[in-house]
Amino acid sequence: MPAASSRSVCVLGLGLIGGSLLRRLAGTRATFGYNRSTATVDAAAADGYDVSSDLMQTLARAREEDAVIVLATPATALGVMIDAVAEHAPACLVTDVVSVKEEVARIVAARHPDARYVGGHPMAGTAHSGWDATDPDLFTDAMWMVTTHDDTDADDWLTVARIAREAGSYVVPAANDAHDRAAAAISHNPHLTAAVTAAVGAGESRLPLRLAAGSFRDGTRVAGTAPDLQRAMLEANSVALLNTLSETIDRLVSARDRLRDHGDVAAIVEAGHRARMAYEEVASGEVEPIVGVTVGHPGWAQELRRQAHQARVWVG
Amino acid sequence: MPAASSRSVCVLGLGLIGGSLLRRLAGTRATFGYNRSTATVDAAAADGYDVSSDLMQTLARAREEDAVIVLATPATALGVMIDAVAEHAPACLVTDVVSVKEEVARIVAARHPDARYVGGHPMAGTAHSGWDATDPDLFTDAMWMVTTHDDTDADDWLTVARIAREAGSYVVPAANDAHDRAAAAISHNPHLTAAVTAAVGAGESRLPLRLAAGSFRDGTRVAGTAPDLQRAMLEANSVALLNTLSETIDRLVSARDRLRDHGDVAAIVEAGHRARMAYEEVASGEVEPIVGVTVGHPGWAQELRRQAHQARVWVG
Repeated sequence: MPAASSRSVCVLGLGLIGGSLLRRLAGTRATFGYNRSTATVDAAAADGYDVSSDLMQTLARAREEDAVIVLATPATALGVMIDAVAEHAPACLVTDVVSVKEEVARIVAARHPDARYVGGHPMAGTAHSGWDATDPDLFTDAMWMVTTHDDTDADDWLTVARIAREAGSYVVPAANDAHDRAAAAISHNPHLTAAVTAAVGAGESRLPLRLAAGSFRDGTRVAGTAPDLQRAMLEANSVALLNTLSETIDRLVSARDRLRDHGDVAAIVEAGHRARMAYEEVASGEVEPIVGVTVGHPGWAQELRRQAHQARVWVG
Repeated sequence: MPAASSRSVCVLGLGLIGGSLLRRLAGTRATFGYNRSTATVDAAAADGYDVSSDLMQTLARAREEDAVIVLATPATALGVMIDAVAEHAPACLVTDVVSVKEEVARIVAARHPDARYVGGHPMAGTAHSGWDATDPDLFTDAMWMVTTHDDTDADDWLTVARIAREAGSYVVPAANDAHDRAAAAISHNPHLTAAVTAAVGAGESRLPLRLAAGSFRDGTRVAGTAPDLQRAMLEANSVALLNTLSETIDRLVSARDRLRDHGDVAAIVEAGHRARMAYEEVASGEVEPIVGVTVGHPGWAQELRRQAHQARVWVG
């Protein structure tokens, strides 16, 4: 088996995330990719990348090169992809870049129970999609969650974590369920609040949209993401999303009652301000590295998760 | 009386909006300003501006120079300001930059019934506040609503509209009630959805905030505005805001029921996407000027409002 750093990477799905990853890693190691759409494959090939629309051939090559397979299709296409991996490249290490982790782990366990699988999720994106939107710098300084359970294989974890580092990201070790609750809170729920903010804002004439400024522009940006991509992402995390959506509604109902009965919005505005300040402190401060952990030593996974809950990141 | 273009401008309140306006207009005409806080006055004077913390002296000068008075204090301080204007500079033309218009018009009518008053609202801002945040380019290419009722004096309207143009903005003529409904929809309601998005996002550990990326960063930006400024703005528009907040809750409850019972978020995501596309069309297209109206000619105010509802702007 080749050393981890020289293993080739096979990206299945060349949309915004998969395509950007292919572009980025192509500078540092052997890469090849697959996309179902020949238009995408033609565009990527024209840009000089080693890509194919033949899934079986791509997986046969992955098997031959012992490549790391990155699943980068929408969540709705994952089942078919994993079936194909199980059949044509069953021994390859598999990771993914899908925005939910429990659902993907369930699909992998059901369809490819012997898979060497370590999940991942780069917290990066734009409102655009497809090969034309890909950008090798998309992951620079982003946070890349890597599944870190007590039974995760340390070598496989390191291989996936190093791909994230090579892509320019910091590694956030987490359990799948903690990731999915966090993703609902800071990504999927914001898609719903952006959507409702946009829908309420677009009134009966064009006057409101003409007057719209920064608060509307920024607050509704992600509502511009292609609806099918939003649906695939949000619906795959429906249990955690129902919880955050219910909390959102409860807080807004309290705010409405208070505004109607007492004319003030103090509680909601102050809670939002505190939360935003906490975010700015985390986001604008120095990135604090996880320290004192050797991956593979006893208790490594637990200790990585513990430090990640304090907002620390793995830098290798 | 001096010609409109040479009239001096007196700005009362030197926070983000008033201070930025003073900075901007100082390049093109005589300007002077007042702020209650001597720290702010000292900072503005150190930057070379003609400012004072003596309200009566400032208003006596406004009266002497027949200056246009711009009310730029928080909504909560307006009553006191208007009383002082009524007493010390009753004949001066008064405008304001407050984010609600019906409430300001009510206060003016009650406390200074003979005022020459034409309201205004520049749709510009940042999450920062105070003199340190002021920027002469804050209003460049912004939309500046100017109250345009059937009984609005044409000369006074032109004077206020030209100040907005000199500041770099486009003029959006509107009735006060239409403005307030629009402001609730595209500015005040987005403050509440940003606040609730932030509060729900900041979970029990720092992991969610560590993973937070673009959707959270942009969707919660305005939640970082000083809570007292947000409260002053939102609570002054409570009737219109109650309507948009109730609509927001109704739409989220429908979305939750649909997600819980059928597992999909199609309706909310698609409505949000349509609204965002409509906004991008208005915001990114060429600015279309109002045509064929001479301010002061019969029906001018009605015609300006009609064209503004089609997203057109007055450029003079």
